[in-house]
Amino acid sequence: MSFATNDTATRHSAGVAITAEQIAAGEHTAPEEVARYALMLGDDALMLGQRLSWWISRAPELEEDIALGNIALDLVGHARFLLTYAGTAWGKTEDDLAYFRDEEEFRSARLVEAENGDFAKTIARQLYYSFYAFELYSRLKDSQDPTLAAIADKALKEVLYHQDHANEWLNRLGLGTEESARRMQRGLDELWPYLPELFHDDDATAALAERGIAVLPSRLEQPTMDRLRTAIEAAGLQVPTTGSARGGDRSGRMSEHRGYILAEMQSLARRFPGATW
Amino acid sequence: MSFATNDTATRHSAGVAITAEQIAAGEHTAPEEVARYALMLGDDALMLGQRLSWWISRAPELEEDIALGNIALDLVGHARFLLTYAGTAWGKTEDDLAYFRDEEEFRSARLVEAENGDFAKTIARQLYYSFYAFELYSRLKDSQDPTLAAIADKALKEVLYHQDHANEWLNRLGLGTEESARRMQRGLDELWPYLPELFHDDDATAALAERGIAVLPSRLEQPTMDRLRTAIEAAGLQVPTTGSARGGDRSGRMSEHRGYILAEMQSLARRFPGATW
Repeated sequence: MSFATNDTATRHSAGVAITAEQIAAGEHTAPEEVARYALMLGDDALMLGQRLSWWISRAPELEEDIALGNIALDLVGHARFLLTYAGTAWGKTEDDLAYFRDEEEFRSARLVEAENGDFAKTIARQLYYSFYAFELYSRLKDSQDPTLAAIADKALKEVLYHQDHANEWLNRLGLGTEESARRMQRGLDELWPYLPELFHDDDATAALAERGIAVLPSRLEQPTMDRLRTAIEAAGLQVPTTGSARGGDRSGRMSEHRGYILAEMQSLARRFPGATW
Repeated sequence: MSFATNDTATRHSAGVAITAEQIAAGEHTAPEEVARYALMLGDDALMLGQRLSWWISRAPELEEDIALGNIALDLVGHARFLLTYAGTAWGKTEDDLAYFRDEEEFRSARLVEAENGDFAKTIARQLYYSFYAFELYSRLKDSQDPTLAAIADKALKEVLYHQDHANEWLNRLGLGTEESARRMQRGLDELWPYLPELFHDDDATAALAERGIAVLPSRLEQPTMDRLRTAIEAAGLQVPTTGSARGGDRSGRMSEHRGYILAEMQSLARRFPGATW
């Protein structure tokens, strides 16, 4: 079904290089190990997009409703590209992968599954993820895999804006009132322990990185963390010292929230596959 | 606060003629009666946008997640324009009007406040509202009030797409399986009684229509209903005969749902005005 909905899906990011439909129809079939990597990246974007969309009728300002809404839709868009490409390895669609995998089959990091909390915590989550995603996509756009490279190039343009948005709020809250700074600091502290999972190397990804297809996660740690520390200090806040959470291997074994997000996201599609009742 | 969020707010509808910020800063202050009319139109868009945004993490397809999400954001955008302009009459912001009015002060029609129900009912609500909004804005763009005219011209471009989207689904479900047609028919039947409220004339609006500022709601009834009947029959469905609901005066007296929508939308902003804790 790629009638009009397709142009809305991309309407808010003009100059889109590719569409999910093109990836699905394209001649590039993802090798199994590339598909697993694409799935890992896509699951992060999908989970964060779902979480963020909660704010659309609840943001503290109508303008922010729309800003967070657009960012959520960008992220779901990135997930569509990555899941569609992954699906070519197994003859599955993006929807098969989004709606019909079980909890333990998702590879998202706990950072993106974290609860929205208050607005400041949501901004902290956006800050951490978008700074990481910028480092990731700015390298992945040179991947030896042309489809991953094209997806990364497209996503990077939007992630640049997501970074600015999170950083603007970091400053607005950090340099705002005593209470806004306290909340922003609390959000940063609460989520800090979930950053290391983003930089966890697994053997399959390491092997792909060897071949210039994937980006080795641990390679992203220093540039991401350096820029985060600079941004946090510039907002008059303290770089957290809250250590690292256990179980940072994307297995979801330690995730409290994944099941809840999936229940919300999958229930309708599972009841009415493809909405073709 | 019109830093980066502002370009996302409009990013997904390129070629925007105006922004809410320009209206707020503009020299045109809405006369009280024009403000009340703008509020009525803005409340419809706001309520429907809130309702529709629920689907973003729950649509039957990821692509549809994004399509409904973009439509919801378009509608919240229209509400921003209309509420911002209305606010100029009383020195209030769009957020004052969205978050700090009480239930009985809203003027939205019950159609846009109706529950999402299943996907088919949501599509029926989109069909009815977008066909009405097309007739409304295609006349309001010639309003003697230049700000209303500019807002209508901008909204019309997006409503054209919303119409196509609803009509595509009407056909897809109406001409789909027996079950999809049954659900689509049920959605159309359930919401049909709420259409007449959209065409209810009140004295203030009638007076503005006399002066070529507003569009007389009853003038929109025949063109809207004729096009709806044609579209419904083209989808192999029955034009509903479910009559008209009582209390169709936009007073909200008979609305079961407005309070629920407002509780969700207003609670955070009321706890933390402007998110400046």
